[in-house]
Amino acid sequence: MKIHNFSAGPSILTQEVLLKASEAVLDYNNDGLSLLEISHRSKAFVDIMEKARSLALELLGLEGKGYKALFLQGGASTQFLMVALNLLEKKAAYLNTGTWSDKAIKEAKMHDDIIEVASSKDAGYSYIPKGYEIPSDYDYFHCTSNNTIFGTQMKAFPDSPIPVACDMSSDIFSRSLDFTKFDLIYAGAQKNMGPAGTTLVVVKEDVLGKVSRKIPSMMDYKVHISKGSMFNTPPVFPIYTSMLTLEWLKNLGGIKAIEEINEMKARVMYSEIDLNPLFKGYANKEDRSNMNATFTLVNEDLKETFETMLKEAGISGLNGHRSVGGYRASMYNALPLDSVKALVEVMSELETKA
Amino acid sequence: MKIHNFSAGPSILTQEVLLKASEAVLDYNNDGLSLLEISHRSKAFVDIMEKARSLALELLGLEGKGYKALFLQGGASTQFLMVALNLLEKKAAYLNTGTWSDKAIKEAKMHDDIIEVASSKDAGYSYIPKGYEIPSDYDYFHCTSNNTIFGTQMKAFPDSPIPVACDMSSDIFSRSLDFTKFDLIYAGAQKNMGPAGTTLVVVKEDVLGKVSRKIPSMMDYKVHISKGSMFNTPPVFPIYTSMLTLEWLKNLGGIKAIEEINEMKARVMYSEIDLNPLFKGYANKEDRSNMNATFTLVNEDLKETFETMLKEAGISGLNGHRSVGGYRASMYNALPLDSVKALVEVMSELETKA
Repeated sequence: MKIHNFSAGPSILTQEVLLKASEAVLDYNNDGLSLLEISHRSKAFVDIMEKARSLALELLGLEGKGYKALFLQGGASTQFLMVALNLLEKKAAYLNTGTWSDKAIKEAKMHDDIIEVASSKDAGYSYIPKGYEIPSDYDYFHCTSNNTIFGTQMKAFPDSPIPVACDMSSDIFSRSLDFTKFDLIYAGAQKNMGPAGTTLVVVKEDVLGKVSRKIPSMMDYKVHISKGSMFNTPPVFPIYTSMLTLEWLKNLGGIKAIEEINEMKARVMYSEIDLNPLFKGYANKEDRSNMNATFTLVNEDLKETFETMLKEAGISGLNGHRSVGGYRASMYNALPLDSVKALVEVMSELETKA
Repeated sequence: MKIHNFSAGPSILTQEVLLKASEAVLDYNNDGLSLLEISHRSKAFVDIMEKARSLALELLGLEGKGYKALFLQGGASTQFLMVALNLLEKKAAYLNTGTWSDKAIKEAKMHDDIIEVASSKDAGYSYIPKGYEIPSDYDYFHCTSNNTIFGTQMKAFPDSPIPVACDMSSDIFSRSLDFTKFDLIYAGAQKNMGPAGTTLVVVKEDVLGKVSRKIPSMMDYKVHISKGSMFNTPPVFPIYTSMLTLEWLKNLGGIKAIEEINEMKARVMYSEIDLNPLFKGYANKEDRSNMNATFTLVNEDLKETFETMLKEAGISGLNGHRSVGGYRASMYNALPLDSVKALVEVMSELETKA
């Protein structure tokens, strides 16, 4: 049975990528050795790293514009800390749109003065605040482009008088944006880019080196840049698999091509949520995420029937986050439209039955 | 042709482990999904994580003795920083036996007062200092058990009046030690334990929580312990492959069994270095590492001939680190005795030829 994988992350990767990744674990390039057991300083791996770094910049349209791409470890949670250590001299402005924004704020607060320019916390993070001001005398503005848990997504980004740092963990490479509006972008790989274990950081070099604190080597973007993202042994396999995924995306036609597919998937999904009286969307309509659709059953009595039907249809990973409950359909780049159709079919079958 | 993989790290893994890891990338447990695309909160992965953690403690003989095992990200280089953040209140004592000790000292110095109890830096790190005193009024003592680059290994550990933190990246699980003498052990996976991308930390809980600084969440051992090593998304694949390697080691008979094999490999290797007049060992004899044998050609004119012969025999990864030059035979747990014999054969053939 084909499994439709709606997992929120780690999440679906394409079969083509999984096949190549699996082969490389046995033998990379037919040289008799696994990719896992060769030096990261070998030409074979240095080529992979450089390709991953340049594909990331190319896909984002940031080549030749003063940006560097790094593949680091530690997840977005480590970036919460690194952003502050590298950019925060006196005070910073954060937009609070969900659990991850909140955690980013908490880590930055340890170091200095943080203001929240706006927050949707009191409304269960069901919408994206708008119309706030970004003060020009702060060091940087930080936001989260997509909120996996609540299913909201920033559709527009404010004009900012100060550098912008953005956590794009759950929607990087999924839609066209003017990425030059951002000075620092970071994203854990395990949604749209690869397996867990590496984090992409894209940073405009000229925002670095302006804080007075001493930064520990592993926390210092400048150190990682100067070593070509190989200050120490990088996570070889997660980077290789991410490179394969970026290559797949490029061959598909890049962000523009995947964006169209993602919009279609979201349309199909949200139409069903809106038209089917058995279901209710969680997020404000205008802020709905094209990546994670959150919804609940209006009548909880149907829960068992619905979940049995999901199982029979091979639909996996649909449970909502414990803080929201209900369901969450994560529709990352690698999820085919057919999987969304399969889910929508089950939802509409339930309506017929009920 | 069979390849004999002497790579210093990332380094050789057993075929059995590589086969299972490769399969899991396509389909884990025959449930139609890759291990890379399932939730880290799924029972399947939580079981892997718990098994890896308990196998690590079991193999080290530390079960039920107040220790916790964590699988983190960021490599030993991140541990240089975390050790200091978690244990360093006023001052700490470091033994400097090589490049990695030196880096550990550098990161710790950012935070506070560090003394080097002894150093072999002036002698090109060719020996392990002995007879030094560890002051009882320092917060902890830090050492590096094996020096990959220079091929030296601590054969004995000093009795310490203060907690001991040890970087065992390149000889963990390779020899019997009384591991209860250590309060904190860390090791990057990519030598004896698995692929690059995860770092084992084994820590005695009662040494934690004694510093007054606020520790960022991702840097705080207590946070990681409280979340069962899943504070954020862990590096799924490197941890799974490490778990498979620990399982393989347990089935082989554990550390005692592998230690015998490692001693035999080292004996064969060093006998050839000592008996063959064409070669010269780098490290002091009594401090020679059973993991990394460093040696040079006495007559550099034979370099080309020797390296052609190595290539023909399928011997890979033998280049010495750029700071030492010559050759380095890394003989980690997964390297078979046959590979050492193949290398020694080439060395002895060279003697016949020359």
